[in-house]
Amino acid sequence: MPQGRPSRIPDDGLTTRQRRNRPLLIVHTGPGKGKSTAAFGLALRGWNQGWRIGVFQFVKSARWRIGEQSVLERLGRLHAETGEGGPVEWHKMGSGWSWSRKQGEEQSHEQAAREGWAEVKRRLADQSHDLLILDEFTYPMTWGWVEVEEVVATVSQRPGFQHVVITGRNADPRLIAAADLVTEMTKVTHPMDAGQKGQKGIEW
Amino acid sequence: MPQGRPSRIPDDGLTTRQRRNRPLLIVHTGPGKGKSTAAFGLALRGWNQGWRIGVFQFVKSARWRIGEQSVLERLGRLHAETGEGGPVEWHKMGSGWSWSRKQGEEQSHEQAAREGWAEVKRRLADQSHDLLILDEFTYPMTWGWVEVEEVVATVSQRPGFQHVVITGRNADPRLIAAADLVTEMTKVTHPMDAGQKGQKGIEW
Repeated sequence: MPQGRPSRIPDDGLTTRQRRNRPLLIVHTGPGKGKSTAAFGLALRGWNQGWRIGVFQFVKSARWRIGEQSVLERLGRLHAETGEGGPVEWHKMGSGWSWSRKQGEEQSHEQAAREGWAEVKRRLADQSHDLLILDEFTYPMTWGWVEVEEVVATVSQRPGFQHVVITGRNADPRLIAAADLVTEMTKVTHPMDAGQKGQKGIEW
Repeated sequence: MPQGRPSRIPDDGLTTRQRRNRPLLIVHTGPGKGKSTAAFGLALRGWNQGWRIGVFQFVKSARWRIGEQSVLERLGRLHAETGEGGPVEWHKMGSGWSWSRKQGEEQSHEQAAREGWAEVKRRLADQSHDLLILDEFTYPMTWGWVEVEEVVATVSQRPGFQHVVITGRNADPRLIAAADLVTEMTKVTHPMDAGQKGQKGIEW
């Protein structure tokens, strides 16, 4: 039950309004469920504020999360039709980044992840979105496909007013240190432990 | 990165399909952010499956989560207009349950929570929804406004195919024991610790 009251008032020379409207770097990590789901829940809120939403899925996963993608893209079309909410772009590594130079060619996952990150950097520089969700982006960081230091420096120095959410297990300590808000999702009970398979509506 | 593979095959006599389509009792607890947001993210997925979504907010909070409410209710109207997705009902304790006998009269929060739970029980018996989100329902349980044993018995014995998600801090151990899926959201870093106030799009 969030109370909305800061536990102390910082001595940073900012007004309450300046502090209130501060772009956040948010990390959802840990082995539990809800990391991506909570990020997409934030996209709902942001859409309702009229934000330009950009989702970048960094791990190839054909079926997962098709639900959120369908609904958020539907909300994006609703914006185009009626002006409600904000525009939505959803880019998946699995189906080839739409801007990839290698469209149609076979591309390694590592190469695809690098290209995805290069495009995200361009968009951060251009301030193309108000909320960027880099879904499962901790994995290419863990695997060394993108440089942690460079990612942290880039998102920390992003211009303007852009919220960035990064999800995935095992977030690098340097990323956690740079983040404004980190939530660790811990698994307490999971139906897969009892042999439950993934099911529609819950897992995708 | 969920793999969708159970870690063992249970000896319960069920077919894979029966196990796959099993109604779940899900609990999001812990002091971190994302408990309600992840629940509303599940509602997105469920809506996309055509599920009848029911959200019951058990704590009076005028401003919080107005974003999700607006969007999910908009999706409910979209369903009514076009048949896409499923119907959405959203009931808030703060604004008076719509079925309350005391409409217009002053009502204690405790009384309101009891009435909310009584209505949820009726709906579970009637199978009115495919996904019920009892948002911040752990609090009336903690405060003794509703009986934990009765809640656990009722949701454990619910008929048919109804997913139930309960959110809030300090979930009772009996509720956790009864749940199929429990995620604890742990606070690692929160901007309110650094004096950051709640801001639109992030907190509501």
